[in-house]
Amino acid sequence: MEKTEQSVLLSFLKSRSRKVDAALERFLPREARMPEVLHKAMRYSVFAGGKRLRPALCMAGAEICGGSARQVLPAACALEVLHTYSLVHDDLPAMDDDDVRRGRPTNHKVFGDGLAILAGDGLLTLAFELIARNAEVSGVQPEWAVEASRVVAVAAGSLGMVGGQAVDLVSAGNAALNGHRAQVLDYIHRHKTGALIRASLDVGAVLVGAGRDERRALARYGENIGLAFQIADDVLDVVGDKKLLGKKGSDQDNRKLTFPAVYGLEESRRRAHKAVSDAKRALRRFGSRAEVLSALADYMIERDR
Amino acid sequence: MEKTEQSVLLSFLKSRSRKVDAALERFLPREARMPEVLHKAMRYSVFAGGKRLRPALCMAGAEICGGSARQVLPAACALEVLHTYSLVHDDLPAMDDDDVRRGRPTNHKVFGDGLAILAGDGLLTLAFELIARNAEVSGVQPEWAVEASRVVAVAAGSLGMVGGQAVDLVSAGNAALNGHRAQVLDYIHRHKTGALIRASLDVGAVLVGAGRDERRALARYGENIGLAFQIADDVLDVVGDKKLLGKKGSDQDNRKLTFPAVYGLEESRRRAHKAVSDAKRALRRFGSRAEVLSALADYMIERDR
Repeated sequence: MEKTEQSVLLSFLKSRSRKVDAALERFLPREARMPEVLHKAMRYSVFAGGKRLRPALCMAGAEICGGSARQVLPAACALEVLHTYSLVHDDLPAMDDDDVRRGRPTNHKVFGDGLAILAGDGLLTLAFELIARNAEVSGVQPEWAVEASRVVAVAAGSLGMVGGQAVDLVSAGNAALNGHRAQVLDYIHRHKTGALIRASLDVGAVLVGAGRDERRALARYGENIGLAFQIADDVLDVVGDKKLLGKKGSDQDNRKLTFPAVYGLEESRRRAHKAVSDAKRALRRFGSRAEVLSALADYMIERDR
Repeated sequence: MEKTEQSVLLSFLKSRSRKVDAALERFLPREARMPEVLHKAMRYSVFAGGKRLRPALCMAGAEICGGSARQVLPAACALEVLHTYSLVHDDLPAMDDDDVRRGRPTNHKVFGDGLAILAGDGLLTLAFELIARNAEVSGVQPEWAVEASRVVAVAAGSLGMVGGQAVDLVSAGNAALNGHRAQVLDYIHRHKTGALIRASLDVGAVLVGAGRDERRALARYGENIGLAFQIADDVLDVVGDKKLLGKKGSDQDNRKLTFPAVYGLEESRRRAHKAVSDAKRALRRFGSRAEVLSALADYMIERDR
């Protein structure tokens, strides 16, 4: 990534995440509202230092189609809230059983398993309230909000994100998979992370009335950056683990399907680079308006976590 | 309840629940679709012999406002799917820790805690997909579907059903509550069960374009039958437990806030009857169209479970 491209991107991400944080502050029920402990748990994970990538993609999707970030702000927040719920539930002992996320104790470690489940349920439900409320923004037609809600529900549900997590859960440590590890890995990542990243862009486009061709191009872009994002994550896990965690990291690699485990480190990196260039090719029709999303594609494999 | 009134109601409930079952069969992803085990878990709890009360209320709400049951069928199914998700999550060991529901092992007993959490998440998400798809039914305006989605999200979220469950969870066995048991009991039931019952009627009205006054009357009706329903449930628990469960039942009574525990059996029954007559009074403006909902109000305290 060139210096100027990078600085355009960083200032985009910074200004958008500031807007999103301010809006999330308004959209989430205050801690003082009953049930206080539930709202505290919901806020604990929403304000835990996330980079607001999905809202940024949603707003960039709106802008590249000729709309404004303001027009999709509630839905952009909905995507972050949805992403947060998925992390809270994934961290539970019955799932990935993680004690720490972003350097802080996970939700259930602080509030207990029952409240963490309910905080996740509350966030998931709030996401759909926010999408419905996006219809109140001037210039947004009600049928666009309905379509946005449908797109998000399909991407987040049992044929999307929840489905990816389910396959991840049942395939962990399952020796019977050995014959088709590559297919299972592909399924997990397309669904567990890919579907919501793709939907983030699509929702931004839908809510500004984008046409079918624009939506299709953004979907292709979204699929490819989702793939690049996930491969980079897996690669960083291996490289980072070797540096930081020693043996514990490599045990996890063996238990979980990852790109480096299936394809090796070099082939994984090659696939990530190919996905980035496929993503950028999908943006061609947008001409000079594609600057930010093009830089974001590069950023997927260059970011630190 | 008179004989003719009762037979009108029973034939209404039967015909509506048949429609709903057939529609749910179409709306839920087939077990053969990947991830098979997740879809199996979702279907296991949706097709577990529920009476489809919330869909019936939604369809009756549409009909009393001059619309048809057909017009609100996807949303009616969404309400049942939402109710099912709440049961699956409530039964988890981290919550009420129940092994049996409607005579069958609970979801997590069959599929494990992780898949039960994901099945609940998948159902909750599917509910909002179905509401969005209700906009495709001819005669339904997109802004009505948006409003239906908003109403359900508020009723099911942290200020509604999930909030009620959270207070139920943190108040169980909490001695510090002794000073205000009545208020806590009231909060739990208005939110945990009441909010979704009220929303079921409102969604039916919204999706056929009902006006503010009709919606308000149905909301008052819904609040009151929700209350009657819950008191009757608590009373049946006491009466039923004494017959069937012996000591185990009474232990549970002591741990959990219930109407008989707070008000005694007779006062609980009096309150249930008052709620039923308040509910029926709210229906006056609908004249003869109120027959089914009026009979349903009586049914709330006469039903067996």
